[in-house]
Amino acid sequence: MKKIAIDAMGGDNAPQAIIEGVNQAIKAFSDIEIQLYGDQEKIKPYLIASDRVSISHTDEKINSDDEPAKAIRRKKNASMVLAAKAVKDGQAQAVLSAGNTGALLAAGLFVVGRIKEIDRPGLMSTLPTIDGKGFDMLDLGANAENTASHLHQYAILGSFYAKNVRGIERPRVGLLNNGTESTKGDSLRKETYDLLAADDSIDFVGNVEARDLMSGVVDVLVADGFTGNAVLKAIEGTAISIMGQLKEAVTSGGIKAKIGALFLKDSLYHLKDSLDYSSAGGAVLFGLKAPVVKSHGSSDAKAIFHTIKQIRTMLDTNVVGQLVDVFSKEEKEDDTK
Amino acid sequence: MKKIAIDAMGGDNAPQAIIEGVNQAIKAFSDIEIQLYGDQEKIKPYLIASDRVSISHTDEKINSDDEPAKAIRRKKNASMVLAAKAVKDGQAQAVLSAGNTGALLAAGLFVVGRIKEIDRPGLMSTLPTIDGKGFDMLDLGANAENTASHLHQYAILGSFYAKNVRGIERPRVGLLNNGTESTKGDSLRKETYDLLAADDSIDFVGNVEARDLMSGVVDVLVADGFTGNAVLKAIEGTAISIMGQLKEAVTSGGIKAKIGALFLKDSLYHLKDSLDYSSAGGAVLFGLKAPVVKSHGSSDAKAIFHTIKQIRTMLDTNVVGQLVDVFSKEEKEDDTK
Repeated sequence: MKKIAIDAMGGDNAPQAIIEGVNQAIKAFSDIEIQLYGDQEKIKPYLIASDRVSISHTDEKINSDDEPAKAIRRKKNASMVLAAKAVKDGQAQAVLSAGNTGALLAAGLFVVGRIKEIDRPGLMSTLPTIDGKGFDMLDLGANAENTASHLHQYAILGSFYAKNVRGIERPRVGLLNNGTESTKGDSLRKETYDLLAADDSIDFVGNVEARDLMSGVVDVLVADGFTGNAVLKAIEGTAISIMGQLKEAVTSGGIKAKIGALFLKDSLYHLKDSLDYSSAGGAVLFGLKAPVVKSHGSSDAKAIFHTIKQIRTMLDTNVVGQLVDVFSKEEKEDDTK
Repeated sequence: MKKIAIDAMGGDNAPQAIIEGVNQAIKAFSDIEIQLYGDQEKIKPYLIASDRVSISHTDEKINSDDEPAKAIRRKKNASMVLAAKAVKDGQAQAVLSAGNTGALLAAGLFVVGRIKEIDRPGLMSTLPTIDGKGFDMLDLGANAENTASHLHQYAILGSFYAKNVRGIERPRVGLLNNGTESTKGDSLRKETYDLLAADDSIDFVGNVEARDLMSGVVDVLVADGFTGNAVLKAIEGTAISIMGQLKEAVTSGGIKAKIGALFLKDSLYHLKDSLDYSSAGGAVLFGLKAPVVKSHGSSDAKAIFHTIKQIRTMLDTNVVGQLVDVFSKEEKEDDTK
């Protein structure tokens, strides 16, 4: 039985969307057990009773505008903190929250803890591509500053995830850079390029420019947390702006545009679907001792369901356990040199 | 009379699109004189004769896949190099090319030359926003590595451009960062934040996230060349992918979708227009002794016309001359300390 601790109070649509997603997952997967942390009076109205779901009541929760590290230290009984603590204490194997990202990163690092040999766990998401296959990108902003050695670890982490969780036999790994030639970039990129090119355990395909990401040129994209965060937000912002303008073009275009939109409805829905992140699951703070997964703040029940499904696959394939093995083995080899 | 040197052979549609843009500009503006550099046999069929347009013939040109610095050194008679040299020698006041970006940056730096007090000229473009006003962003990739002092200079350069060329009385300047709070970012961002906040000559409005750029939250956005380049390409790539998928959704959506698209045509054109960079002119390598402007490789006649118009405004307002004054004054003040 896979045990997942869930912060029932995090995100814009909590607890309703969280609980409805849990209901769906409990029905779909007979091998999971869910521990909900939050206000039981607010949870119960939405919960379909099951002997595989329990509620640990708490009044306290972390808000979206709380200062992350401070919130984790001071709100010891917050739903998010208790869910992370359940993993630390061995009562659960993974934690999910749609709440304050910074606070979840802090809870992951300080409560769940990182794998000893991984210096800086990275935030990783599966982003959409035109062909529908997607790619895993990290670090998306868990760190403001990264070294080449961190980026090398991200390449290994991302490959592990793409292989084990997404079933890609030999994931193509790219380095986000300001040109595709091998000599491109600043000193961080040049140093990282050499490390990745020398590592036979990964399939490094070279530098990748941000404009080619949606074309599906790689399965894993490695970036420092600052640039990764900026690129992720640029993609999101552009997609949201264009889709918003498209809607605006239709509504302000008069009766003719409205008739057109009616005819185009199916095709436009299809477009929206292909840009939809929610079926790809949440963002994983990868490099910790257990899966710590952030679902988008605006997650609906469907997104929560898919994030639980993603966590279930991570536990099923023991991707984190395998990471521990590989990294501790490397460490030992280094010791014997 | 404003004298503009133009590389007639650069870009995907050269020389036709270049010459047709020149014809339009010569007709629209009676105070400009154009010097064309390139193959006269290829230029002449498109050129409408005018005593304000001259051709300097050369067979040599820089290709899009030439290694920039090497090309500038070895192809001394390339159309782009000769156009830059015309500015250096005082025969022209500005240079325009739609060719190899790296080569034009190199020609700008090594032939035209930078303003002594500006350490690292930055590549700047006016990018589109939903409200149609746009914002000026730099550095878009002239440099792979920047210091806080470079970024401070970019804030001054961008403000100068927005004020003089775009007529914004007091341009709002933002710093691209991974969060809006003043404490956000890596050491480069924190140091830059302090420099910008302390400079009364600019209207610094704080940190800006990449997801808010298209909402028009600032008039000038400052970034290091590596991140600026990545964000620009992420925006471009996302916009191109979505518009491509929209087209695909229509063409693969059967007769119903096609009828819908027919009705929606005007609204969709309007959307495409609002995302169109070409009327905003080209990218300026700003911080040089004269305007050096790169028009997009895929520029059509309209884009070339608008870039010439932009250069005319830069010469009209003497924005570069004013920059020289301000920066050399600062230098003198520093000397007397």
